[in-house]
This record gives sequence, C-alpha cells and structure tokens, in this order.
Amino acid sequence: MAKDNQFVENIADIETDFPQWYTDVVIKTKLVDYGPVKGTMVIRPYGYAIWENIQKELDARFKATGHENAYFPLLIPMSFMTKEAEHVEGFAPEVAVVTHAGGGELPEPLCIRPTSETIIGNMYSKWLQSYRDLPIKMNQWANVMRWEKTTRPFLRTSEFLWQEGHTVHATEEEAIEETMKMLSVYQEFAENCLAIPVITGRKTDKEKFAGAVATYSIEAMMHDGKSLQSGTSHYLGQNFAKAFDIQFLDKDGEHKYGYTTSWGVSTRLIGAIIMTHGDARGLVLPPVVAPTQVVIVPIASKKPGVLETCREVKEQLAKAGIRVVLDETDNSPGWKFNEWEMKGVPVRLELGPRDIEAGKCLAFRRDECTKADMPLEGLVSSVEALLKDVQSNMLERARKRTQDRIVYANSVEELLDGVEKQNFVKAGWCGCRACEDRIKEETAASSRVIVEGETAETCVACGKKAEKVVIFARAY
Amino acid sequence: MAKDNQFVENIADIETDFPQWYTDVVIKTKLVDYGPVKGTMVIRPYGYAIWENIQKELDARFKATGHENAYFPLLIPMSFMTKEAEHVEGFAPEVAVVTHAGGGELPEPLCIRPTSETIIGNMYSKWLQSYRDLPIKMNQWANVMRWEKTTRPFLRTSEFLWQEGHTVHATEEEAIEETMKMLSVYQEFAENCLAIPVITGRKTDKEKFAGAVATYSIEAMMHDGKSLQSGTSHYLGQNFAKAFDIQFLDKDGEHKYGYTTSWGVSTRLIGAIIMTHGDARGLVLPPVVAPTQVVIVPIASKKPGVLETCREVKEQLAKAGIRVVLDETDNSPGWKFNEWEMKGVPVRLELGPRDIEAGKCLAFRRDECTKADMPLEGLVSSVEALLKDVQSNMLERARKRTQDRIVYANSVEELLDGVEKQNFVKAGWCGCRACEDRIKEETAASSRVIVEGETAETCVACGKKAEKVVIFARAY
Repeated sequence: MAKDNQFVENIADIETDFPQWYTDVVIKTKLVDYGPVKGTMVIRPYGYAIWENIQKELDARFKATGHENAYFPLLIPMSFMTKEAEHVEGFAPEVAVVTHAGGGELPEPLCIRPTSETIIGNMYSKWLQSYRDLPIKMNQWANVMRWEKTTRPFLRTSEFLWQEGHTVHATEEEAIEETMKMLSVYQEFAENCLAIPVITGRKTDKEKFAGAVATYSIEAMMHDGKSLQSGTSHYLGQNFAKAFDIQFLDKDGEHKYGYTTSWGVSTRLIGAIIMTHGDARGLVLPPVVAPTQVVIVPIASKKPGVLETCREVKEQLAKAGIRVVLDETDNSPGWKFNEWEMKGVPVRLELGPRDIEAGKCLAFRRDECTKADMPLEGLVSSVEALLKDVQSNMLERARKRTQDRIVYANSVEELLDGVEKQNFVKAGWCGCRACEDRIKEETAASSRVIVEGETAETCVACGKKAEKVVIFARAY
Repeated sequence: MAKDNQFVENIADIETDFPQWYTDVVIKTKLVDYGPVKGTMVIRPYGYAIWENIQKELDARFKATGHENAYFPLLIPMSFMTKEAEHVEGFAPEVAVVTHAGGGELPEPLCIRPTSETIIGNMYSKWLQSYRDLPIKMNQWANVMRWEKTTRPFLRTSEFLWQEGHTVHATEEEAIEETMKMLSVYQEFAENCLAIPVITGRKTDKEKFAGAVATYSIEAMMHDGKSLQSGTSHYLGQNFAKAFDIQFLDKDGEHKYGYTTSWGVSTRLIGAIIMTHGDARGLVLPPVVAPTQVVIVPIASKKPGVLETCREVKEQLAKAGIRVVLDETDNSPGWKFNEWEMKGVPVRLELGPRDIEAGKCLAFRRDECTKADMPLEGLVSSVEALLKDVQSNMLERARKRTQDRIVYANSVEELLDGVEKQNFVKAGWCGCRACEDRIKEETAASSRVIVEGETAETCVACGKKAEKVVIFARAY
C-alpha cells in the first residue's frame, strides 16, 4: 500500500528510532498529551477508551476471584510511610507532599499515595477482629503519584491510573496462594485480552517491591527487545501486618498477625500494547480492548446506494455488540485508510458500488495488512470470526518473537551481545547482589525474573556455582 | 416486627436525632469509615458498590448523549487558578497545596484539583483549532479535594469522588442547551435510578459556581426537611474561554472564543439516598443501585431440603441478572432479618420447610416493611415485578412527601416557621443580595433555586416588588 499520507510520513521509522516512533504514535493518534506540569499526562478519549476496556475485563476477573472494590484516601500521613523501614526507603524519594491546605499549614505533612499499603493497612487493623473476618480481599481503582525524573507517556509519569489489590489472610500458605493466583490472573488477562505473551517469575531482592518478602511480575518483550514490567504481585509476609498491627483473634484464642499481599497493574499496560504490537504504520490494537474494532470506509460514497449500504452494515455490526465506526467525512478513501491504520483499528471494511453489486466488501486486517473479499451475507459472523483470528494471530506472532529472542549467555560479554541484539538473555547467577550490579553496569541489563525449574552450572558474572537461572534484559 | 436486635438498638432515633441516626447508619452498615486524616472518608465495599451502580447508570447516559471520557492531571499549577477572578476567589481558600515533591521544593506550588475547569481549559485551548472540532464534549471520573472545616461522610469531606463534564460550543445557544440537557439527565437519573424526586432550577448569583454565568441544580428534600444540592450544571459563558484562550477559527474566517459548560455529581448522591429513604430500621436502598437486591433467608435451615431449595432459588435469580445473596451464616433468622433490613436490601425472601411444602416463600419488601406469600413457580418474574414496584413506590412516596412540604411564606417570620417545621418555603424575592443575606441570617435558610414560571407580588424580606419566586430551605 502506498505510504503517501501526511500521517505516516510524520511517524519516525520504527526500526531506526523506536523512542521517537513511540512519541509520534501516542501523540498523533491522540491517545495522550503532555499535561502542563512536567512529567504529567492527559489521557485523551482514544487512550482512555482502551483503559476502560482494560478495567472492564480486569474488574470482572477480580470480582470472579472474590474481591470487592473500595476507595481509600489519596493523602497519607507522612508518619505512616515510615512505619515499614524498607517501604519508606523505597518510596520517600518519590513522594509529593502536601504541606498547606484550607489556607493554613497542616499539623503534619501529608503525602500523595505512591501506593496504599500503609493507609489500607491502617484501616485493616481497625476492621479486622476475628479469624471469621478473614480473608479480607479488596481492590481499588485509583490515581497514584511517584515523582520521577525521566518520564514518558503511559510508561513513567508522575501521576498514573492503576488498580491495587490488598488482601489479608490467616496463614502464609493462603497469602502465597493469593499472590500466585493474581499473578496468573494478570498473565491470562495479558495474553487473552492484550495479546501480550508474558514471562512470569519471581524478582530478585534487588528488584522487588519495597517492603515485600517476594515480588512476582509479568514481563513482556517490546518491539525493540527491551522488557516492560507490566504487572506485579507481592507477597508481603507479616511485614505490613506488624508495622500496622493487623491482628486477629484466631480459633485457638490467640492474637495473631495476618499475612498480606498486594498486586497492581496500571495505565502502563497501554504502553505495553503500543510497543508490543505497533508497526511502521502506527498502532495495532488487539480487538478485545480496541475502542473501535471495525471501521467502515465507503468508496465512491456519492454513488447511489453506497452510504445506505454502509449504514445498514454498521447497524448490523453494532447490534451484534461490535464497536464500529462509519467514516462519513469528506476525506479521500486513501487518507481514511492511513488514518485508521495509524489508529490501529483491527478491521476495516471497504464498500464501493461494485462490491455492493457483487454482494461483498473488502475486509482489511490491520495485524497482517492484507485484504480479502467478504460476502455481505453472513457478514456479522464473518467479522466476528475475523476479529477473533486477528486477536489470536497477534498473540501468536508476539509469542513467537519473544521465544525466538531468548538466548543463553555463558559470559558477561555474551550477555552484552545478547541484549544488544535485542534479546532476553538467560544466564546462571550465583545469587549475590555484586554480580547482579556488575551485569547491570556492564550491559545496562537488569534481572527481570528468576526462571523456575531450570538450572545452570556457573554464574555468568563470577563463575562460581549458579544458584538460579535468571532472565536479564534492558528494561523500560 | 420485634426490634430486639443489637443493630437496631444501636441506631439513634431517626425522628429525634437525625444527625446521629445518619452517623450510626453509615458506620454500622459499613458503607463508609473515617480515614486517618481529619475530614477524609474510606468508602467501604458496601458503599462503593452503590457508587459503581451509580457510575454505570450515569456513564451510559453520558455516552448516549455524545460525551467521551478522558483523564486530566490531579495537580494544577497555582497560576492557573488565578486566571479566572471569581473562580480563584471561590476555591483558593479550600485548596490543598503541594510544595515539595521528589525530595525537593517545587518551582511553583501545585494545587490538588478542587474542580478541573482550569486545567481542562488549558488543554482545550491547545486542542481546539477550527469550528470543525466543535463541540468538544468530555467527562472525567475522578477524585477532587476541597478542604472543608465541617465534614460528614458522603456529604462533605475533604476528598470525594465525582464526575465532571466539560464541554465547548461554537455558540451561546448550544452551550445553554447542553447545560439544560445535562440538568435533565441528572433529574431523570435521580428520579428513575435513585428514586429521589428533585426540584430543578437556577441558582441565585450568591449561590452559583465560582466563575459561572449561571448555575442550575437538582435539589432534593431529605428526611429532616433540609435540602441537599445533589448535582449542578453550569453555563460558563466565555469566562473560562477568555481566561484560558479557548478560541477557534469559525466558518467565516474569524477567530472566536468558545462557550463552555461544566456539570457534576459526586459520592454525595450516596448521602442523598440514605437521607431520602432511610427509616427507623436503617437504610432503604432503591433496587436499581442496591448492591444486593434480594436476600434469601432460610428458616429452619437444617431441615432437609431447605438449603437446597434456597440455593436453587438463588441460582434462578442470579441467572436472571438479579443481585442476590443467600445468607447461610449461623445467625438466627431474626438476627438476619434485622441486619439485612438495616442494610436496606429491597427484598427479602424467607424459605422454611412449610413454605417449600406449600410451593411458596414469604417476600418482605423493605420500603413498606410488609410481607406477602410468593409462589415458587414463576418466582423470577414475581421478584422482578416486586423490585420494580419497590423502586416506583419509593419515588412516589418521596415525591409526595416533598410536595406536601412545600409551603408559601409572606414574611420572614412565616419563612422561619416554615423551615422549622421541616418544609421547603416558596417566597417572593426582590432579587437583591441584602434580602437574601437577611433571610439566611434570620432563618438559617438559603435560597435553593429560582422557580420558573411563577410570580409573586412582593419580596418576603423588604416588601418591595418581587422579581422572582425562590425556594428557601435549610441545606446540607
């Protein structure tokens, strides 16, 4: 297809300047814009509609696994942050602080939540009395704030939207089970809704959440071979329970501390979609979360019957619950093709007088950028099947790319070579922080997850006995 | 029904101590709790589920009227607030200010949004180019913060959740039409979903939104005869367009300022539901937004077949989309009755061995606190019909109470007598601020709305010619 369009011309080349391609795409497709305060973003309707679809899918999964939504205050007393030692160390440098309100200085500075373990822990402590109250399983959809130096829309901004689940359990086993359960919910959601294959696993201590016993993450490979941590599930042990006195009277009459978990995903997932599936023409959106699933472009729209047929087709698809737009603007078909391709709409139907006469239309699929005839009879089921096929093809294609780009390294030099060739690199690791730091320093790759069920002979860095196999990659 | 229950015993008397009744009910039914920072609230799952139902209903109405959701930043540069003179005067005393972030002092203090006209105006100015871009019709679901001295859960808290719609139009007529359209959306929603009859009308200049040309509100009468402003729709003229340079190139080649509107409702609506419908036993929730619409209480649940039948009934109702709970706890039926009545569940089904044998159950309706037999055959449609009847009966009952309690006053003394007897009071008003202030001072009643299409001879305060008829009431 000719690339004679102003939009496509204006997108940087995806292979040679991926960062600029990303910026061009998110701005030009009106997913997002920069807010007036440095490091903030405005999520525009096209971007927010993706977030709404993400929310709908995830929220149903949270409720199906027995969680209830609630809402906790934005502002947290600074003293709460300091109750869990690792937690404050991790988050204090990034918090935004409210010192004045209602025309006067506050008795205690308040911080805008960077995450809510502390304030939720405080409330759970108040609510939890007996083992009968357990488990407590809540989730909140909220904005959070982490003051970052380097920002990029969706990937890292001072404020972002997310969900954070927080649970309390009577035993360690139950809390670990919850941690793993939510990790698997994230994985299933990422794969089936976002068409993003993810690698799951435990983080090293260096990379874990500040205050957690263990952090598990879903990691996805982006177009440029970098990894994006796309969601995390934390087993918090009794760390927060002890810091916030989350105790219950057990069956045996003893007061005991609960075991807690927390888990979250954010608007960062929109960045993951863009950077996993995007191509030279712009966005490629998975049908399940695409704001518009099908766009209809009339050809020779002034010819009798064309617009009427397009409107009928639109009605049929809309009635079947398909998110469909009919582009009736004055722009040329070619201009429309390019615009909707840049916006990543999964399926385009082109209807001209000859197509209508022949009882068909042309169906373009965005993932493969190919066209095929589609009969108007039985169109709804054909479109439904095509959307399904686009969704699964996108997942398989991304899965294949990820699998093809996992290599094994026996030395730091090989590891460097691997990540420079845009791979994820598996390597043995002795388990010590010094080796992890050295690898980061020499290759700019960080440990992403510890691989379960695999062993290696020696540590890639020090050559001593390997305790674990780790995936290293450069990361966002 | 015997009131021999710990819960009911613990609720203050609704007639003699309404404020304490309110506090008791919101806390004991676990709708809400106090947050650790003074003036903040935690919305617990039972309260948040009401908010989710409100959101679902409203969001569908906003989309059906052509609005798109978006998300704008929480933090607004202080300099934005001062660009619209009336706006800053109204909101500056209530803002919370962020002075430090990321470990250092900020170059400019940022305020936490008390409302978003300023930051959205700033973005609209950037996005709006041509008349082809108009109208712009966006909505956001967000948290906002207004530092209040006296707070009460849902009614007035430093942070609350709301939606705020913000639109730009090419002409004054279109903007006014939008303002009135959204007022009518709020009215229809309040009446059909919350069963709350509302009085709509324009606010006096004293009571209007800071920066608006005209504010319209939906006002509802609470159990104690006080008014609750439950939603507002503002026509902003070109005030914000000029302050934020929201201009477009019109068809005639001229650059022109747009006309803007804004409109919002908040978690305050949950307070409106509680105080409109609640009774001596606690909450009475309208079926459309009740988290649980039907509770099933087994009687003699250890008798063979009872629990099984209850579970079957639950399955049937759930399949039909009814939000149903089967109470299988060990508590006595009487305890369960009282608990679920306090929680305001619209319909309770009681099933014991004799009922089952007779092919029926007992259906209790919370609005009237009456019971009647209901055949198990065709139960789903019977329950659906009953829920519908509860919903409409709640609206009619509240409407009658409101209508019966609107009286007319010819003097400030009559006005005082009227509001003390828990009425809304209609009175002539000359239109001057001095009279409005005097009435407030002597009766503690404020003007709620200007009544359309009615005239009066003289002003209730000064006796001069009346310009308008106004409804006065004490208000939350």
